[in-house]
Amino acid sequence: MEERILTKQEFADRIVRAQAEIAKTDLDALLVFSTESEPAGVRYFSDYWPSFETAGVLIPREGSPALIIGPESLTYATARTQIPHVIQTMDFRESSQPDYPGSTHPDWKTILGEFKVRKLGISSWHMFPYAIMMNISDALGGMEHVVNADAVLRPVFMKKSPLELECLRRSAKVSELGFKAILEAIRPGMTEAELCGIATAAMLANGAEATGYPVWCCSGPNSDQAISRPTLRKVGCGEIIHFSIGAKVEGYSTSLGRPVVLGHCPEETRRFLQVGLDALNMTFDEMRAGRLASDVAKKVHGYIREQGYGDAILYGPAHGCGQMECEYPFLETSSTYPLEEDMTFMADMFLHRNGMGFRWEDGLIVRRDAPAEQLSSLGRELNILKV
Amino acid sequence: MEERILTKQEFADRIVRAQAEIAKTDLDALLVFSTESEPAGVRYFSDYWPSFETAGVLIPREGSPALIIGPESLTYATARTQIPHVIQTMDFRESSQPDYPGSTHPDWKTILGEFKVRKLGISSWHMFPYAIMMNISDALGGMEHVVNADAVLRPVFMKKSPLELECLRRSAKVSELGFKAILEAIRPGMTEAELCGIATAAMLANGAEATGYPVWCCSGPNSDQAISRPTLRKVGCGEIIHFSIGAKVEGYSTSLGRPVVLGHCPEETRRFLQVGLDALNMTFDEMRAGRLASDVAKKVHGYIREQGYGDAILYGPAHGCGQMECEYPFLETSSTYPLEEDMTFMADMFLHRNGMGFRWEDGLIVRRDAPAEQLSSLGRELNILKV
Repeated sequence: MEERILTKQEFADRIVRAQAEIAKTDLDALLVFSTESEPAGVRYFSDYWPSFETAGVLIPREGSPALIIGPESLTYATARTQIPHVIQTMDFRESSQPDYPGSTHPDWKTILGEFKVRKLGISSWHMFPYAIMMNISDALGGMEHVVNADAVLRPVFMKKSPLELECLRRSAKVSELGFKAILEAIRPGMTEAELCGIATAAMLANGAEATGYPVWCCSGPNSDQAISRPTLRKVGCGEIIHFSIGAKVEGYSTSLGRPVVLGHCPEETRRFLQVGLDALNMTFDEMRAGRLASDVAKKVHGYIREQGYGDAILYGPAHGCGQMECEYPFLETSSTYPLEEDMTFMADMFLHRNGMGFRWEDGLIVRRDAPAEQLSSLGRELNILKV
Repeated sequence: MEERILTKQEFADRIVRAQAEIAKTDLDALLVFSTESEPAGVRYFSDYWPSFETAGVLIPREGSPALIIGPESLTYATARTQIPHVIQTMDFRESSQPDYPGSTHPDWKTILGEFKVRKLGISSWHMFPYAIMMNISDALGGMEHVVNADAVLRPVFMKKSPLELECLRRSAKVSELGFKAILEAIRPGMTEAELCGIATAAMLANGAEATGYPVWCCSGPNSDQAISRPTLRKVGCGEIIHFSIGAKVEGYSTSLGRPVVLGHCPEETRRFLQVGLDALNMTFDEMRAGRLASDVAKKVHGYIREQGYGDAILYGPAHGCGQMECEYPFLETSSTYPLEEDMTFMADMFLHRNGMGFRWEDGLIVRRDAPAEQLSSLGRELNILKV
């Protein structure tokens, strides 16, 4: 097993960087919120990631942060957290809302009072629960003391450190092993779910701590699904079978998207797949430091339209990646920011039409005056397998 | 592969049962909300379960319901949904908040207007996002038109149909195959994550559509974690290694909790494990239709205290199960409801002290005048394995 990448210093630096951003605002503190399926923010600052329960990291303008967790996660959290101060609260308990008779965990008035918070910024605003927001608002004296602070932390999350790039590279490498296990095992008649299980087991045996998201396989009529989950459908010959496979390594998630065809690949299918692959390669070539994100999206979409597949486009050709396989920023024809060196993206080419579709996807690091660095070493090529 | 259990009629009946409950209120409609890691409500009514994006089911007081999804899930949702009317809205997009330039999905005023909703109940209130709640409140003219409706649907969710019991039995049977794959494969030096991968692959090859939750293995010093996730720690001899393994079958999730010891089991450990097993067996014996839930919890906790392990208790000896492995109601010393036949629970005996712990867990169906029916056929016995 390879050595751990992230250091105590890395986590300490993140708090410092967050506090530098808080200093530019009128906020007394930030509360970063996470759930089982959206663990990124809390993991980023504390290395803890919730399951069943939810969690938060409270970062004051100055001084030490606190990890805030639910009633059942104390031993789990203390074994993982890089933030020594751990607070339990009932608001972060499971969605089934257990009773915990006799529990004496503090409320928000106590917690926020300890940190002398009068104005609080919330990160992960769009998924923050209404019920908890009301409790916090009551504790602070009204919603005028609570603001959406997603934008405050974006400069922190978007700038990847050398160790973060290492985590992403390792995630891509382990994802590659998951996909290779599929290439070795796949036979007509295996189910989509079974194939996902094979990839998952291979990744977990090779350094992944989990999958980065619920991985999927879409075959035949299911292939036109951009977001999906595997079914018990049996894969067959001559149809598109596409995989979205991603390992989580020390909190970092990438994804590999590859279509596979067993046996004969009809010429029309091959041409459709090739347009997607060409668009993926073009995305790698075009994403260079200094370029406007929208210019890249326009060029790649223009190419797809020229080839006659404009109606098959669902979204832009890339999106940010880091602790979430899909995170801010998106790369769309409406994206006005310039690309910078060491920004990390998933080039994500999903196309679908007439009940057939596929995804080509690969992680990349933006470089200057050179095509983007591919995170994995998996060939960007069609996999048409003999049966 | 076995045949599908749930029928179109089953889903139609659920809407009818929900509307019978709505008729007892002054609500015009219910909105059931789900996320990637909390898919139960939307899955229950529509058979669709979101990933990356979120989703809702709008059930009007009378007439046909609608499935409401995000911008990228249309082909995925239409391939799965039992509710033909599918509406897309930006509010259910991914947490990374993509742009989708040019998108024209309707807002809440349009959606709720179509159903003539003036007063709306929200189910999954405690995880419903603040930002979406504000958009709904604006569409309806204020929060006085939006109420917490969790209690409205509880009688619907809590009463399990014969087909639901069948799904739960199959989930338990597949979970058992996952745990047996671990018993066959486990060796000192394998990592916790690797063992979880082996169980996952076995379940996905045998009819599971997914794991019911992020399954875990806790070994040695990690064994005192009640909720957890697997690490890259290598399991060793003479320590407690406990597994929480659960398959999802047609949306239904159960769990198997079993401690395993490789090689010699110290006498003190064996005694601790045995008290937990006795408490699990007592829970199966005591949970009979007509008994007060709190009486069962008091008796089981009383037994554990008599044996000298009162300080090792973290929560009650059982909790509801269905589409979530852990759902309402909990069985605590404060639970005032009577047990009824065909209620389904997980008997969940987690004990920990001095940095050591374990979980015994098994699904059950409440019976009258007989011990509860165990969902799986896995022996309730200590697994001390030769190495």
